[in-house]
Amino acid sequence: MVLSSGRLIGIESFFSPKSLSVVGASGDRGSLGRIILENILKRGFQGEVFPVNPKFRSILGIKCFRNIADVPGIPDLSIVLVPSKQVPELVKEHASKGIKNVIILSAGFSETGEKGRELERKILRTAKDFGMRILGPNCLGIFDNVSHLDTFFIPDSLVRRPVPGRVAIVSQSGSFAGHAMDIAAFENLGLSRVISYGNKLDINEVDSLYFLARDRHTKAIGLYIEGVENGRNFVRAARYCSSFKPVVVLKTGKSEELETSVASHTGSLSGSYSVYKAAFRKSGILEVDSLELFVDSLKALTCLPRARGRKVLIIGHAGGLGLLLADHCVEAGLEVPKISGDLFKRVRSLTFPFASINNPVDLTASGSDEQASRVFEEAFIREDSFADIAIYLALWGLPQSSDKIVAIVKRAIARSGKPVVVASVTGDMCLRKRSIFESKGIPVFLSIQRAAMIAKLLFEAEKIQMNVKKEKIRKSWSNN
Amino acid sequence: MVLSSGRLIGIESFFSPKSLSVVGASGDRGSLGRIILENILKRGFQGEVFPVNPKFRSILGIKCFRNIADVPGIPDLSIVLVPSKQVPELVKEHASKGIKNVIILSAGFSETGEKGRELERKILRTAKDFGMRILGPNCLGIFDNVSHLDTFFIPDSLVRRPVPGRVAIVSQSGSFAGHAMDIAAFENLGLSRVISYGNKLDINEVDSLYFLARDRHTKAIGLYIEGVENGRNFVRAARYCSSFKPVVVLKTGKSEELETSVASHTGSLSGSYSVYKAAFRKSGILEVDSLELFVDSLKALTCLPRARGRKVLIIGHAGGLGLLLADHCVEAGLEVPKISGDLFKRVRSLTFPFASINNPVDLTASGSDEQASRVFEEAFIREDSFADIAIYLALWGLPQSSDKIVAIVKRAIARSGKPVVVASVTGDMCLRKRSIFESKGIPVFLSIQRAAMIAKLLFEAEKIQMNVKKEKIRKSWSNN
Repeated sequence: MVLSSGRLIGIESFFSPKSLSVVGASGDRGSLGRIILENILKRGFQGEVFPVNPKFRSILGIKCFRNIADVPGIPDLSIVLVPSKQVPELVKEHASKGIKNVIILSAGFSETGEKGRELERKILRTAKDFGMRILGPNCLGIFDNVSHLDTFFIPDSLVRRPVPGRVAIVSQSGSFAGHAMDIAAFENLGLSRVISYGNKLDINEVDSLYFLARDRHTKAIGLYIEGVENGRNFVRAARYCSSFKPVVVLKTGKSEELETSVASHTGSLSGSYSVYKAAFRKSGILEVDSLELFVDSLKALTCLPRARGRKVLIIGHAGGLGLLLADHCVEAGLEVPKISGDLFKRVRSLTFPFASINNPVDLTASGSDEQASRVFEEAFIREDSFADIAIYLALWGLPQSSDKIVAIVKRAIARSGKPVVVASVTGDMCLRKRSIFESKGIPVFLSIQRAAMIAKLLFEAEKIQMNVKKEKIRKSWSNN
Repeated sequence: MVLSSGRLIGIESFFSPKSLSVVGASGDRGSLGRIILENILKRGFQGEVFPVNPKFRSILGIKCFRNIADVPGIPDLSIVLVPSKQVPELVKEHASKGIKNVIILSAGFSETGEKGRELERKILRTAKDFGMRILGPNCLGIFDNVSHLDTFFIPDSLVRRPVPGRVAIVSQSGSFAGHAMDIAAFENLGLSRVISYGNKLDINEVDSLYFLARDRHTKAIGLYIEGVENGRNFVRAARYCSSFKPVVVLKTGKSEELETSVASHTGSLSGSYSVYKAAFRKSGILEVDSLELFVDSLKALTCLPRARGRKVLIIGHAGGLGLLLADHCVEAGLEVPKISGDLFKRVRSLTFPFASINNPVDLTASGSDEQASRVFEEAFIREDSFADIAIYLALWGLPQSSDKIVAIVKRAIARSGKPVVVASVTGDMCLRKRSIFESKGIPVFLSIQRAAMIAKLLFEAEKIQMNVKKEKIRKSWSNN
C-alpha cells in the first residue's frame, strides 16, 4: 500500500506485536481455532494474547472475550479465523477499535468466485478508509522464529517447525509454505520468518520483499509466486531486495494452458511465463524450478561462498558416481576441465597409482582422508588452482572418520574463499553422514544432480552480485 | 562369449552355485577378505563355502585351504580377491582344477594402464582356452536375493541390502551398484539380483541382459553403463530383453569432454552420446538421467500399470503444490486437460464450493477421503474418463485416515487398469505417510517433479510395448 506521499507503510509491525487478538479461537479439540492458539502458546510468543469467541469463557486457561470491542486496549495485531461472510463486518469492528494490522486466515473469498470477490472489496474499502493493513485472506499468515509468532493452523505433527536461522520464505500458497517449512526442518535449514499471503487483498510479495530487504535476521529469501499484478512494482522491489541479499523464486502456472486454474486458485491472473522470466532476470533474482531445489538453493546461499567462475573440481571415492556428477555439471552449464601437466603430476604423486585423477578425481574406496586433504591443497586451495568450485562426493566410499573429512572441507572453504559443495544421495548411511557434516555447518545436498545445479546457482548468484556492484558504481559516476 | 556355433554360453550358473571358493578370504578384522565371507554367511547362502588363504587354518569357523588345488571337488564358482599381479597365475590354477566360473573382485587392471591391460589379456587367454567365464575384474560381483549369494565386499552398515523383489540392477560401476542398492532399500524397492561387472573382461551388459530377459524372478531391469564396445550386440540384446520386460538405462560419460576420464576409469571407450541415444531408442529401452529417477522408474514399472496416453488428472488437497505438479507434467510432455462441461458439474457437486476443480482438483485441506473417492470414481474410473493417468498428491493436506486413502488409490488402479502415481515430498510427515502406502504395495515418489517424470515414463513404457507387439505381428505376417 502506497501513501499519497509515495512512501510505503511497512509491514514490520506484523512481525513484532506486543499483543494480539485471535478472533475465532476455539476450545474444541482438533478445531483450527484451537490449533492456532496452541501453536501461539507453544512457540513461546511473549506478548499478550486475547482469544475472541462468544461461545467460550476461557480457552486453554486464557480468558476469552465475546467480541473484539471487549478486548482491553488495542491489540497490535489481530488474527481472524471465522467464516468468510462474517469477515467484512468484523473488519469494520476492528477499524472502530483502532486495530491497524489484521491477518485473515479464513478461506472462501475471491478464490471461489464473484461473491467472494465482493467480500474482499468490502474489506479493502474499510482497510483503505482506516489506514489498516491486511494479510490474506485464504492464507496461513506468519511463522516467525524471531518474535515466536506462529499463526499457521497446522499442528507440528504435520508441519515440523524449523530451527531459527537466516532464511525467510514468502509464499502465495499456504500448502507450499507449509511443505517448504517441513522440508527445511528435514534438511536442517534454519528459518527467520515465513509469510504466507494467500489472496493478497493488500499485503503481497512486494511488501514482503521491502520488509525482508532490511530485515537483519534474514540473509536470503525464497519466494513462491503464482502471479503478480503489477510487474513494474515487483521488479522494483525485487531489484531493491536482491541488492541486499539473494532472492530465489519458484513460479508456478508457467504453462499458458494452466492460466485458468491459477486464476481460480487465488483470484489473481498469471501472465505469460516468458514475461516473468525476463522480469526475474531484470530484477536480479534467481529462478529455480522445483521444490527440492528451492530449499537446497537457500541452504547453499546462506552457508557457502559464491563461485567466481564455472570451473569445477570433483573429488570423491567413487568412479561411476563421479562420472555421473561430471555429466550433471556439464548439463548445468559448468565446466569440468581435465587435470593435466604439472598439476596432474602433483596429484598423481599424492594418490594411489590405480586412482583415476583426470577430474573427477576418484581417490577410490581405499583413498584416505589424508589424500583428500592433500588433493584439496594442491588442486583447489593453492592460488594457481584452475577451480572456482569443488564438489565433494560424500558417499559410502568415504573414509570412516567423517569428522576428519568435515574439517578438511571446512578448511578448504576457509582457506580458498571458494565453495565446496558436498554431494550425497538418500539412503540410511548417507543420511547419517549428512548429520555429521551439517552439525558442523557444512551443508550436504542429497542428490548428485541437484549438487551440480547448486554449484551452478552459486556461480549465478555471484554474477548477479557483480552486476549489482557495477550498476552502483555506474550510478555513482553518473551522479558526479 | 560366443561359441564357434554362434550360441552363447549363458551366465545362469553364476547365480545358482552349489559350492564356491573364496580366494583371498581373510580372518583379519575389517579386511575386505573377511567382510566378503561374513556377507556370504550372513545372507544365508545354502551351498558349500571354501575359503582359500595360506595364512589361515580356518576363518569364521570354516576350514580354510592353502590353495585352490587343495579345495575338495570342483567349486561351481570361485571368488577372487587377491592383488592383481597374482591373478593371471591364479586363473590358470582355476583352469587346471576345472573351475568354469570366476568372479575377480580385485582392482589394478586395465583401469590403471598398460601393465593392467597385459594382466587382463593373460587372464582372457586362459579363460578362452579352457572355456571359462569371468565376471570382473574391478567389480563387486553379484548380490542375489534368490540364491542368497552376496560377493559385495561392503558391510551392511554402509550398503543396506534391499528385500527380495522383482527388479534386477546391472552396473558397470561398483559405486553406482552399491548406492542404487542402498537407495532401493531406503525406497522400499525389492530386488532380485544385482550384477556389478566392472572392467568386463568377459561378462558384460550383453550377457547380463540375455540372462535377465528369461529370469523368472526379474520383472524389470535397471542398467548403468559408461560405454559399450559392440553396439550391434548391445542393441540386439537390449531389444531381445525389452521384448520381455522393461529395461531402464542410465548412461554416464555423455559429454564428449569426458571421454578421457571414462576411458581411464574402466578401460573402455565411450562414444558420442547421440549414438547411444539412438541405440537406446532402437532397442526399446527407457533412458533416465539421474540416480533418483533410475530407482523411481524401476519402482513404478514393477508396481503400476502402464499409461495408454498422456492425459493426466491431478487430485490433491493442496492448491500451490498442485499447480507446481501441473507445471512439471507439462514440462515432461504430458497434458493436464481442463475439466469442463458435464464432468465439471459432476465433480462440482461432489466437492466444496470453494474447492478449485479445473484440474488440478484441489479438494482443499478440509476435503474428505469420501470426496477423493468419489472424484476418482467420476473422473478417473468411469469408462468415459478423459484421463490416462492420475497423480495423487499425498501431502499434509491429506486426511488423517491414511489407510482409507490407500484403499481408495488401490481400488482406482484395480478398477480402471490405469496408473495412479502417488506424489509426495521429503519431510518427516510425508516419510511416515509413505510407509503406510508402501506397506500396502502402492509406491510413493518423494518428489513432485519426479512424480511427473514417472507418469511420463509409464506412458513411454506403454508406447515401447505397443511397438514391440506391432513388430511381432508384422513378423508373424511376413513369415506367413
